[in-house]
Amino acid sequence: MVPKHQRRWPRLEKRLDVLPNQPDNLPNQSGSMHGNGASTLRRRLYVILEAGKTGDRASSIFDLSMVFLILANVIAFAAETDVALAAEYGVAFDLFNLVSIGIFTGEYLLRLWVCIDHPPLRRFGPVVVRFRWALTPSMLIDLAVILPFYLSLLFAIDLRVLRIFRLLRFLKLTRFSPALDTLGRVLYGERRAIFGALIVMFGLLLFSSSIIYALEHEAQPEAFGSVLRSMWWAVATLTTVGYGDIVPITFPGRLFGGLVMLFGLGMFALPIAIISSGFAREIHRRDFVVSWGMVARVSLFQELAPTILADLVEMLEAQVVEPGAVIAHRGDVADAMYFIVVGRVQLKFENRILELSEGDSFGEMALMDERLRSATITTMARCHLLALPAPEFRKLISLHPHARELIQKMIRERGLSAQTDNLENEIVEDRAAEKDT
Amino acid sequence: MVPKHQRRWPRLEKRLDVLPNQPDNLPNQSGSMHGNGASTLRRRLYVILEAGKTGDRASSIFDLSMVFLILANVIAFAAETDVALAAEYGVAFDLFNLVSIGIFTGEYLLRLWVCIDHPPLRRFGPVVVRFRWALTPSMLIDLAVILPFYLSLLFAIDLRVLRIFRLLRFLKLTRFSPALDTLGRVLYGERRAIFGALIVMFGLLLFSSSIIYALEHEAQPEAFGSVLRSMWWAVATLTTVGYGDIVPITFPGRLFGGLVMLFGLGMFALPIAIISSGFAREIHRRDFVVSWGMVARVSLFQELAPTILADLVEMLEAQVVEPGAVIAHRGDVADAMYFIVVGRVQLKFENRILELSEGDSFGEMALMDERLRSATITTMARCHLLALPAPEFRKLISLHPHARELIQKMIRERGLSAQTDNLENEIVEDRAAEKDT
Amino acid sequence: MVPKHQRRWPRLEKRLDVLPNQPDNLPNQSGSMHGNGASTLRRRLYVILEAGKTGDRASSIFDLSMVFLILANVIAFAAETDVALAAEYGVAFDLFNLVSIGIFTGEYLLRLWVCIDHPPLRRFGPVVVRFRWALTPSMLIDLAVILPFYLSLLFAIDLRVLRIFRLLRFLKLTRFSPALDTLGRVLYGERRAIFGALIVMFGLLLFSSSIIYALEHEAQPEAFGSVLRSMWWAVATLTTVGYGDIVPITFPGRLFGGLVMLFGLGMFALPIAIISSGFAREIHRRDFVVSWGMVARVSLFQELAPTILADLVEMLEAQVVEPGAVIAHRGDVADAMYFIVVGRVQLKFENRILELSEGDSFGEMALMDERLRSATITTMARCHLLALPAPEFRKLISLHPHARELIQKMIRERGLSAQTDNLENEIVEDRAAEKDT
Amino acid sequence: MVPKHQRRWPRLEKRLDVLPNQPDNLPNQSGSMHGNGASTLRRRLYVILEAGKTGDRASSIFDLSMVFLILANVIAFAAETDVALAAEYGVAFDLFNLVSIGIFTGEYLLRLWVCIDHPPLRRFGPVVVRFRWALTPSMLIDLAVILPFYLSLLFAIDLRVLRIFRLLRFLKLTRFSPALDTLGRVLYGERRAIFGALIVMFGLLLFSSSIIYALEHEAQPEAFGSVLRSMWWAVATLTTVGYGDIVPITFPGRLFGGLVMLFGLGMFALPIAIISSGFAREIHRRDFVVSWGMVARVSLFQELAPTILADLVEMLEAQVVEPGAVIAHRGDVADAMYFIVVGRVQLKFENRILELSEGDSFGEMALMDERLRSATITTMARCHLLALPAPEFRKLISLHPHARELIQKMIRERGLSAQTDNLENEIVEDRAAEKDT
Repeated sequence: MVPKHQRRWPRLEKRLDVLPNQPDNLPNQSGSMHGNGASTLRRRLYVILEAGKTGDRASSIFDLSMVFLILANVIAFAAETDVALAAEYGVAFDLFNLVSIGIFTGEYLLRLWVCIDHPPLRRFGPVVVRFRWALTPSMLIDLAVILPFYLSLLFAIDLRVLRIFRLLRFLKLTRFSPALDTLGRVLYGERRAIFGALIVMFGLLLFSSSIIYALEHEAQPEAFGSVLRSMWWAVATLTTVGYGDIVPITFPGRLFGGLVMLFGLGMFALPIAIISSGFAREIHRRDFVVSWGMVARVSLFQELAPTILADLVEMLEAQVVEPGAVIAHRGDVADAMYFIVVGRVQLKFENRILELSEGDSFGEMALMDERLRSATITTMARCHLLALPAPEFRKLISLHPHARELIQKMIRERGLSAQTDNLENEIVEDRAAEKDT
Repeated sequence: MVPKHQRRWPRLEKRLDVLPNQPDNLPNQSGSMHGNGASTLRRRLYVILEAGKTGDRASSIFDLSMVFLILANVIAFAAETDVALAAEYGVAFDLFNLVSIGIFTGEYLLRLWVCIDHPPLRRFGPVVVRFRWALTPSMLIDLAVILPFYLSLLFAIDLRVLRIFRLLRFLKLTRFSPALDTLGRVLYGERRAIFGALIVMFGLLLFSSSIIYALEHEAQPEAFGSVLRSMWWAVATLTTVGYGDIVPITFPGRLFGGLVMLFGLGMFALPIAIISSGFAREIHRRDFVVSWGMVARVSLFQELAPTILADLVEMLEAQVVEPGAVIAHRGDVADAMYFIVVGRVQLKFENRILELSEGDSFGEMALMDERLRSATITTMARCHLLALPAPEFRKLISLHPHARELIQKMIRERGLSAQTDNLENEIVEDRAAEKDT
Repeated sequence: MVPKHQRRWPRLEKRLDVLPNQPDNLPNQSGSMHGNGASTLRRRLYVILEAGKTGDRASSIFDLSMVFLILANVIAFAAETDVALAAEYGVAFDLFNLVSIGIFTGEYLLRLWVCIDHPPLRRFGPVVVRFRWALTPSMLIDLAVILPFYLSLLFAIDLRVLRIFRLLRFLKLTRFSPALDTLGRVLYGERRAIFGALIVMFGLLLFSSSIIYALEHEAQPEAFGSVLRSMWWAVATLTTVGYGDIVPITFPGRLFGGLVMLFGLGMFALPIAIISSGFAREIHRRDFVVSWGMVARVSLFQELAPTILADLVEMLEAQVVEPGAVIAHRGDVADAMYFIVVGRVQLKFENRILELSEGDSFGEMALMDERLRSATITTMARCHLLALPAPEFRKLISLHPHARELIQKMIRERGLSAQTDNLENEIVEDRAAEKDT
Repeated sequence: MVPKHQRRWPRLEKRLDVLPNQPDNLPNQSGSMHGNGASTLRRRLYVILEAGKTGDRASSIFDLSMVFLILANVIAFAAETDVALAAEYGVAFDLFNLVSIGIFTGEYLLRLWVCIDHPPLRRFGPVVVRFRWALTPSMLIDLAVILPFYLSLLFAIDLRVLRIFRLLRFLKLTRFSPALDTLGRVLYGERRAIFGALIVMFGLLLFSSSIIYALEHEAQPEAFGSVLRSMWWAVATLTTVGYGDIVPITFPGRLFGGLVMLFGLGMFALPIAIISSGFAREIHRRDFVVSWGMVARVSLFQELAPTILADLVEMLEAQVVEPGAVIAHRGDVADAMYFIVVGRVQLKFENRILELSEGDSFGEMALMDERLRSATITTMARCHLLALPAPEFRKLISLHPHARELIQKMIRERGLSAQTDNLENEIVEDRAAEKDT
């Protein structure tokens, strides 16, 4: 049995050479190979700007710098409204604003320039690609951040409107943290429940303010002068904010006020019921932002049509796993397929060990054939993984028969169908051996 | 095997013709066919007023208009109490109120007129039907909205009482949103737990105000003059509203006040424990209001007695499903039976595809015989579905043996017993074929 | 097969005669039959005072009257501290207090008199029984309510101490609602977690007040004069009460204040995490208070030793079930044994129907032999059930081998081992019949 | 079969003698036996200071005294900042501080002296052990508490800095309560989710304060003078603290203020979603602090390398179980292995009973071979147990093959492989007996 193991290891090494785990040669494989200096620079910039979480140092520095620049802009925006600060540091604020607009403009143009290196889009012409790219939500936010400044040079725009657009700079953070995106998805997914809770709250508000108006408006004709004005007290009380600027003073008013406070406790239960479970579930699904650049690095995805890719990006869960963690045990029920964005993973089969790294995927065979895990999978370093859960995997190959064929074809092409198939060969060979004896 | 498929498709098309998926001919099938103009108009109005979510444009416009009219009434009610606004726009408010009463009266009378087209009630005479209809909760709310106005024309009614009845207009929203209804059901279902939590809160309130009274009433004889007065501070503190109009000032008073604030945190846990889990569960059971008109459109239900129908409406879960979603996979355990209110659904059997639309039902065979799903079910468009979960299904056919017979009879009558039975035929035929060879 | 059914029904009726489903003849069976008037009255009073939830009208009226009397006492206590009210209605308050003490004394003495009719205690002499009974928590609370009044007649007691003892009247409600008892059990069960949360809160409070003291005590030497004084602000802010009587005014103070408010949000999560899940679980375990009188009505329990009974009362879950609800389906896994306190239940076996009522138990056979339910169990009326969940059942018969023997003996004695055994007989008979043919 | 039982009992008793359930002879077994008075004292002090929860009276008294001393220090720290108190009791505060520092210093030095008796570290020389011990987190906190005092004798240190270090005394509590440690682990484990929630909150805060600034800064140029200043209102409102020192007064400002309050309700849901579920899960994992001294008492662990032990201490769950509780039933799926820190446990096999006490472990056989429990395990007294859950057990023996060998070797060495193996022997013997007949 020993020669069989020796035969296998070189095959694996060859495979690791072929897989795109060197970030800088990825566009070479898939881009339009004209090979001049500009194109080399563009490919390098593509990795820095779009690939994300590749372990590339320049990319990490760029991301961090942008996050700090955005936060500095937001703080500057808040500080600049202070008359004293504006008077003293007005020039500095203006300069910082100009520099920021410059950097944001440069970033926008660069992103537009390098996007044609995005593998799933390479089948279209450069103009079409850049037009489609400019219409993605992230690029539209980037445009909304810089456009008002240039328009204000051409037309006279109200300063207030300009300020509101400056607030949008905060939204640029969605490119770097999954939190705002996650909250957005939770609120969208629960929109009917939230609308329902709002109706309940509005009803409670209406009845509270109507009754307190009836009880208090004679004693305090100013504060409780109408149902509309009483709503200010009602909303502050029901949400338990309780400013105390307006309080009931009559005995029946206070009695009813006490009831309203107790109802307020119940009102808390509604948004918590709706948002907390959804948010807790979603926030653990995405430890980092899944960018198209990341997905494009997985060899399996490079042949998929952009429409399928768009579905796929939504389905993927992004997990950061500490080194030494056991992702799956041999014999477990397979519940997901994994793609390695950064890090190394060890697969321990019954009688041999395999190491996978960036760009590799594992676990698809067990999902495809609904078999148990044939290896214990342990992380060898801090890993960023993309997981495609079993139900989403089945949904994908059920909605897109083309994806199924591609996965099956790729498993066949790979030859060794890394994780599982060897084991079966061995079993088959063992059985053959048993027959021989 | 090819001719067998060809033989089956026409049968399905014939069936789709027979099923009531054209809203306007539904009453024709089941109503008393006198065929004159008034009856045609009544049938059309029945669809607009009562059928709901039928994809009927007039019905949607009517629903939306009513929601806006109700909200406008509520806002007008709140604004009218403002002396300044009442002085300036008093005539407009009065006019708007008159017009609204007119529309609500018309709506009430129309609903009473068309209700005899409600299929499950058609066995009774028109007077009996209208009397029973007028006693349903929704109709009683509608009556409470308009009646006080007419009574005030006959008798002198206190303006305050009239105002409280005007608040009831808000409750008309229950006909259009399931949120208030859902909350009501949660509060009813958890009434014992809520009563228990109220006793705990009342106890906490009593002990807090008694002890703070003992500690503070000498230092602040006005604010903490008695246990009853101290309760105002205690309730504002325990609910964390904290107006700050009355605060303890002595050292022991503040020490105890700090403890009361900490207890307040625990008090929040009680309603959250009780309401949130129940509300989260219930709010997802009903994405829209299930009306009798909706249920009446399902051919399966038209033979059921009104008493069984009333049970059934309570059991149904109403779900909005996006296009392309997989409702069930072939081989899944059957957990519910479905009725299509709006939209199209595709059933993918092993070797053929079936499409179902409005008024159709699917999944009842798998529930009846406790078998696995024989088709993968995918939505082809945005669907409004009514789901009858398996335990409720079993409860229904266990409590009402008549319902069981009806479902079995209907499956038999349909001939092709659409979703599942064909498969069995095929298996039988395949076996026969195997024998032949 | 028909004669077999006829043969069985009379047996069942006979059994229903024997079972103690007539409240008034229960003590007759188990008490010391001296049969004179006083003893008859005592037995009747036992049912009214202690048996609870028996459907006995006098018992319900007594319970309700006591709840109202207790609440009236609590309100009177709160109102009496008001100087104006005390001056005007002082005599009325004193009178009401005297009458209440009289009633509570009478109740206490009556409970002490009738307790010897409590079946599990009948093996002891009257004096021992009464002494043991007087030491139960409920009786000690009752004593604490009346004793201070009588002591105040003998000795001069400080009015404040007397008032605190009057507050204890509220605790008498624990006899009638399971809420306070439930909360107590949750707090006891989670005492380590609550202690842990309190340490976290105290630490947060300490650090907040120390830092705000450092930042603000120069600007506001009065309000933030020391760490101790700053704690008043810190506790009001961390619990989000926010009186607003003391607020930071310097820029660093407000910056840190903002952080403390955000920490406050996190502090809410701790008690909610600890109390809410425990309370939600516990509150549904007990829809009503389980009294010894209730347990004593179940024939199965009358032979059990008081120590086992005490364990059992803790284990039982008390559920109110609406009519028509299905408690278990034929073929379900048995998860609990049930005792009927009030109401009727129908057991539907494969080919016959059985009705059980007050005092009966069902489901113990399936638990004993770990078999599936052999009947579908439906409530025929609103039922108060005591459920002994499977793990508790196993714990009981594992800790008390005597209980196991008793249950087995009782099943044997009953003859028909009502719910399940018949079915087996039938199967046996059917097999015999099959052999015959 | 009777002689076989008799043969077994003495074997068990012998084993109980050998196991280290007498705290004072534990270091004797494992320490470096030089046997003079200092070493005996050191061993005794090791048990008192480090072993924890051993049922040793001196150890419990020491722990409790330390907890009270720490709390007294914290209260003194808070009180001392009060000018009036400091003036009156200044000398007493200084004296108490000096005494405390003395006790803490003594404690620190003693811990450093006795640590060489810690079994897993005995393979290193005393200097290396003490250096490694001094670098553990608990020892570093202890050092940080005493060092500033000694440094202030040598150098002039700002009183404020000294005060902040005095606050650290509170952190000494982590040695005695698992709560702070638990919260720390939850916050670390959920750091990405918390960071995400903070971004959402910061965004909400930014938009709220920007818009309220736009709406209110003309009406209240002081309070809402800039976006930065408006943030004070926004944070107090969003967190529902609601001081009421600054409130919007214009109509649009109040309208928007009402919306912000409602958003505040949603903001509560985020930390509750993140922290509460994690905290509720973690707080029940550790009823007491797991110290190395505890783990060192378990015979099984004394051969493990310190690196494995460090992993193990993290994996163990610490549970307090009341007497009479059933930990596992015969036939249950094995989900954990247990170690007894304090208390006695009874294992009831099919036909015999075994009693285990401090230092013993049970349940490892069932985990090792993935078999069902062969005994019902009941606590005979209040027990402190360390549980190693099945997934952690598998992880441990998968990451450290040496640990697997040790466990297997120990089971073999023990001879009777206490809990499970006998049963199998019996079955084997029974089968043999059956063959004989």
